[in-house]
Amino acid sequence: MFVQRAMRQATKAQTILGASPSKYAAKVLSSSRLYSTPALAPLDASKLEINPSKNQKALQENSQLVFGKTFTDNMLTIEWEAGKGWGVPQIKEYGKLQLDPSAVVFHYAFECFEGMKAYKDKDGKTRLFRPDMNMKRFNRSAQRIALPSFEDEELTKLISEFLKVDDRWIPKGRGYSLYLRPTMIGTQESLGVGASNKAMIFVIASPVGPYFPSGFAAVNLLATSEKVRAWPGGTGDAKVGGNYAPCIKPQLDANKEGFQQNLWLFGPDHQVTEVGTMNCFVFWKNEKGEKELVTPELDGSILPGVTRDSILNLTRSWGEFKVSERRFTMSDLVKADKEGRIIEMFGAGTACIVCPIKKIHYDGHDIHVPLDPSDKTSQAGKLTKRINDSIMDIQYGDVEGPKGWSVVV
Amino acid sequence: MFVQRAMRQATKAQTILGASPSKYAAKVLSSSRLYSTPALAPLDASKLEINPSKNQKALQENSQLVFGKTFTDNMLTIEWEAGKGWGVPQIKEYGKLQLDPSAVVFHYAFECFEGMKAYKDKDGKTRLFRPDMNMKRFNRSAQRIALPSFEDEELTKLISEFLKVDDRWIPKGRGYSLYLRPTMIGTQESLGVGASNKAMIFVIASPVGPYFPSGFAAVNLLATSEKVRAWPGGTGDAKVGGNYAPCIKPQLDANKEGFQQNLWLFGPDHQVTEVGTMNCFVFWKNEKGEKELVTPELDGSILPGVTRDSILNLTRSWGEFKVSERRFTMSDLVKADKEGRIIEMFGAGTACIVCPIKKIHYDGHDIHVPLDPSDKTSQAGKLTKRINDSIMDIQYGDVEGPKGWSVVV
Repeated sequence: MFVQRAMRQATKAQTILGASPSKYAAKVLSSSRLYSTPALAPLDASKLEINPSKNQKALQENSQLVFGKTFTDNMLTIEWEAGKGWGVPQIKEYGKLQLDPSAVVFHYAFECFEGMKAYKDKDGKTRLFRPDMNMKRFNRSAQRIALPSFEDEELTKLISEFLKVDDRWIPKGRGYSLYLRPTMIGTQESLGVGASNKAMIFVIASPVGPYFPSGFAAVNLLATSEKVRAWPGGTGDAKVGGNYAPCIKPQLDANKEGFQQNLWLFGPDHQVTEVGTMNCFVFWKNEKGEKELVTPELDGSILPGVTRDSILNLTRSWGEFKVSERRFTMSDLVKADKEGRIIEMFGAGTACIVCPIKKIHYDGHDIHVPLDPSDKTSQAGKLTKRINDSIMDIQYGDVEGPKGWSVVV
Repeated sequence: MFVQRAMRQATKAQTILGASPSKYAAKVLSSSRLYSTPALAPLDASKLEINPSKNQKALQENSQLVFGKTFTDNMLTIEWEAGKGWGVPQIKEYGKLQLDPSAVVFHYAFECFEGMKAYKDKDGKTRLFRPDMNMKRFNRSAQRIALPSFEDEELTKLISEFLKVDDRWIPKGRGYSLYLRPTMIGTQESLGVGASNKAMIFVIASPVGPYFPSGFAAVNLLATSEKVRAWPGGTGDAKVGGNYAPCIKPQLDANKEGFQQNLWLFGPDHQVTEVGTMNCFVFWKNEKGEKELVTPELDGSILPGVTRDSILNLTRSWGEFKVSERRFTMSDLVKADKEGRIIEMFGAGTACIVCPIKKIHYDGHDIHVPLDPSDKTSQAGKLTKRINDSIMDIQYGDVEGPKGWSVVV
């Protein structure tokens, strides 16, 4: 009966948590008026306590930066408890988390995260790129795995404060940035399989250099259908930890055969879904002879990438070719390859912006994707490079993008 | 390029780890003979260091036990490192794990576990039930998410030692046991998405009482097809953390409507797969009029439960009715219900052994599953009760089961 008991407790907590912000506010109001039930504390940036580290670690040279390996002096943490809500946000010295071995994050993968970057512009100001998109997705990911929701804008404010405290860690120079990793974990100290009665948001930050330090290097992909990244009704559209570990074994298998990444397929018709941990884009002449940039539609198993959305927005604003979100299959790609219609292909994500693709191994054959033969220093097609430069221009504040895309903190 | 770099390192480590035990031994032999390459240390129970807690916590009354909430005085831990292998196993005071916030277990769900129990028999000896099955599955789960493999029997030996140290925590009495939770987590302190270069096994233990303290209580299920627990090419057949958190939201939704568990369906034909976190069994008269106990076949998306396997073995040994592992759908169940052919239904797992089902809500209708009307004290069919008693008899050493099922430690 422990499952039922845990469920009853959890449902009680969840009934309020699951509500939308406005319903939540209404509940808080009515409960404080009509009952003595204490209201759940919202995430409140004004409560922030800052006790920064007294030790300033040595910064690394820009050339020495490795993704996600070195972290700044401090971190941001906020704890949550069922029946109480969000606690006092803390900026404090970066250090180990102390968790009970029964904490549910270790057993049932109550964990979700975001990847975003802070950039230094030419005036020395710090900018975030579309942080509202990350915060909304973070909330959706949390709700998919029954972790608590939070007030989007408050977390952005807290991250901005964190960036002020660790400002010296934001590397200067185009291509350099401070990678931010907001993470939420369930910390209930009990093995009952139910909603976690405790949780924690932590944000850590790691200075990073360009994904391609010496010009684009295009990747070879192994089209993979035996292992499947995501499924309708699963969690492919949420940034939850459980989506990642199962992809490593197929990735290692692909690496052994000389491929850098998997091209994840789905279904008996081998729909193209994602590339490694990136969204997938094809630029081709479609069967009607139109130039078209296409990426799989958000059908529930595709991660709604911030870079993906930005590419769609930008290229649509150019109005130079058709831009589509729709399904396409390996047969479509094979046919386009045979008919010489593929122009470019690339993966897209926060880490690289775009990652050019040069070859796909599928069903015993290779599909060769054209690059730009006139470019002797880097392997990427012209559109791929243009998209990369356009997004970078906005991220570093050199060009003003759409409203709210580049936010000075 | 960080992905590629991480992959190269990981592949190097994985090449040896991925090998089968015999190949592994051959490699160790050849490497120590022909090269000066240090051999990777296997998991070795003879290296165990025991530094038990000096504080003996107060035991709880049997009636006060709640699943997975109270833990014993000590825990077993063993750390692993790429290029080195397994370290010194430690039995030490139960206490918090200290992990870097960048540890990959928090981000990419590098985590898998087992659930097993230690029982006190009438002579006061401690028994495990088919520990070899748990250890084999634990290894398979680890390999599915690129965590290191280990020597099965050595971990069983270490668990046996742990049980000796915390012997006073094993509750006496039929239905009572010490629940063991072997867990493996990836502890690499770097956000690169690749195989973890560090890992840890920990085993914690929690005294538990009977799942049904006052006679069986049958459950109501909501048949769920919108959210999907597992899929071909996924991880449904591995006991990895990522399988669990995504099931909580649907479970809470079911609870709100008055159902205790989800009946997980799969595919357009609504195949029956699992019940909550249990395997699913139906006892019916099949379309040919034969009495048949049926459970879904192990097609890659069904967890190969130890209780599941034990039930299949036992009932086949009885030779009284047909026992099948095969697919069946909700249409099959609906038809059988209409024709009055369903005799019993139950979930099966380590926590409960069997959990009787009394109702399934599907497609706007209820399927009512018969129980035993002659039994006024508990809600369960005759076969369900007989299976429960037969397995318990073996677990507590009252009846000698098949060779290797009940192991005195």
